Amino acid sequence: MLDLVSSLEDRLQSHLLPCSLPPDVQYYKNNSGSSQISLHVTPGNTHSPIDFVLGSWVHSELPTGGSLDITSISAYLKTSNDAPNFAFDLIRSSPTMLLLVLDLPPRKDLILSPEYLKTFYEDTELEKHRQELEKVQEVQPYFSSSLFIRAFASPTAIYVRVQTENDGGERIDEILRNHIGPISKQVLGIWLDHCACAEREVGEEERGYLRKRDGFVRNKTIEVDLGTSFPRLFGPEGADKLLDAIKKYFSV
Amino acid sequence: MLDLVSSLEDRLQSHLLPCSLPPDVQYYKNNSGSSQISLHVTPGNTHSPIDFVLGSWVHSELPTGGSLDITSISAYLKTSNDAPNFAFDLIRSSPTMLLLVLDLPPRKDLILSPEYLKTFYEDTELEKHRQELEKVQEVQPYFSSSLFIRAFASPTAIYVRVQTENDGGERIDEILRNHIGPISKQVLGIWLDHCACAEREVGEEERGYLRKRDGFVRNKTIEVDLGTSFPRLFGPEGADKLLDAIKKYFSV
Repeated sequence: MLDLVSSLEDRLQSHLLPCSLPPDVQYYKNNSGSSQISLHVTPGNTHSPIDFVLGSWVHSELPTGGSLDITSISAYLKTSNDAPNFAFDLIRSSPTMLLLVLDLPPRKDLILSPEYLKTFYEDTELEKHRQELEKVQEVQPYFSSSLFIRAFASPTAIYVRVQTENDGGERIDEILRNHIGPISKQVLGIWLDHCACAEREVGEEERGYLRKRDGFVRNKTIEVDLGTSFPRLFGPEGADKLLDAIKKYFSV
Repeated sequence: MLDLVSSLEDRLQSHLLPCSLPPDVQYYKNNSGSSQISLHVTPGNTHSPIDFVLGSWVHSELPTGGSLDITSISAYLKTSNDAPNFAFDLIRSSPTMLLLVLDLPPRKDLILSPEYLKTFYEDTELEKHRQELEKVQEVQPYFSSSLFIRAFASPTAIYVRVQTENDGGERIDEILRNHIGPISKQVLGIWLDHCACAEREVGEEERGYLRKRDGFVRNKTIEVDLGTSFPRLFGPEGADKLLDAIKKYFSV
């Protein structure tokens, strides 16, 4: 998924400041060395509508002998731009099983914002990409165990589980190369063209609403997502260290 | 699904007024006689938190020789009670294919209302019923073509397609009897116990919010749901007659 990161960095080059995390958080491994993470947070500059981009790469050796790899890229906009954020998570827990989350999570209640639904989800034809991936035989819808995460997803969100035959991982690599890779790049392209760089007029009242809603989402992301996976991977002390370093970016 | 209706009527007996639709709307068929509908709207009385319950039974002979049967039951609460509504739709388009929608659609933005999510979706364990149905081999998630309808669904919504082998309908009848029937009754039971009869304190500002959000949902329901299916089934004139008769109940 390096392609995805370079697409993002190329397009947002003039927007982003360098990562300012301490080096021992940018690369961290637990005491036994079984889990390691490479973590980057690049904040948007003063003039950018981007608040920050977070990328993380986790590799963990499982007690069962296998390994777990998690690639996450998420991009958060400031309240001066009400467009959807970007979320990508790829969790490969065995050579033949992976979970993919690919979404532009809305920042408003879509029921009360039909224009927002039309602009960012209908007119951009995001659904086409969800349907394209759904056609791949090994791809099945996946339901997060967190109802908050389900509520937070957009109507065109891609939450899928890919389970292939026991072929050592060949087929899943093929699905990554021919389907997940290209579709992720297209969805990121939509986000870059229609969201990150959208010219949106956001009034003061609207900004207050976004501050509140974004705040809820970011706190919950720390609590139910990173706040549960980091302790499992890095132990309580390691997780605290990592979370402390990134928490300040999550404040709205 | 007569069971479902009698459960609802038994429990809400003291709440509901008789159906006051004109007789030629309570039962209507198109000129050729190929489509017929039985339509009931029972409004809640002055003291009830129920705004109205709508039930409809459609039977339509298809030009292909098959037939289409749609059973819909939905219950809408007043703004004095902010609990979720109830929605049930069963669309059987052949002996071996059906779609089921079973949900308690939220009436608030769940991202901004974590207590609401907890009370009505987590604590009620609605998810258990969704998972139970998901286990049946022939049951597959179904994605509505309307992004609005997807946005409107709760995180525990059951939107499924059931497709069985060409056995004349025996297996699907079994799934209806052993799975869909009991699960629908349980979900309705949760709605009756925890929503319809919930004692909720709703302030004036909150009521204003519900009036607005309910209004959007009800208008869209008329527009994208009934407003597209009725003309197809009963022609423009018949659809107008039916929609005119029920529209007044949908105003908030």
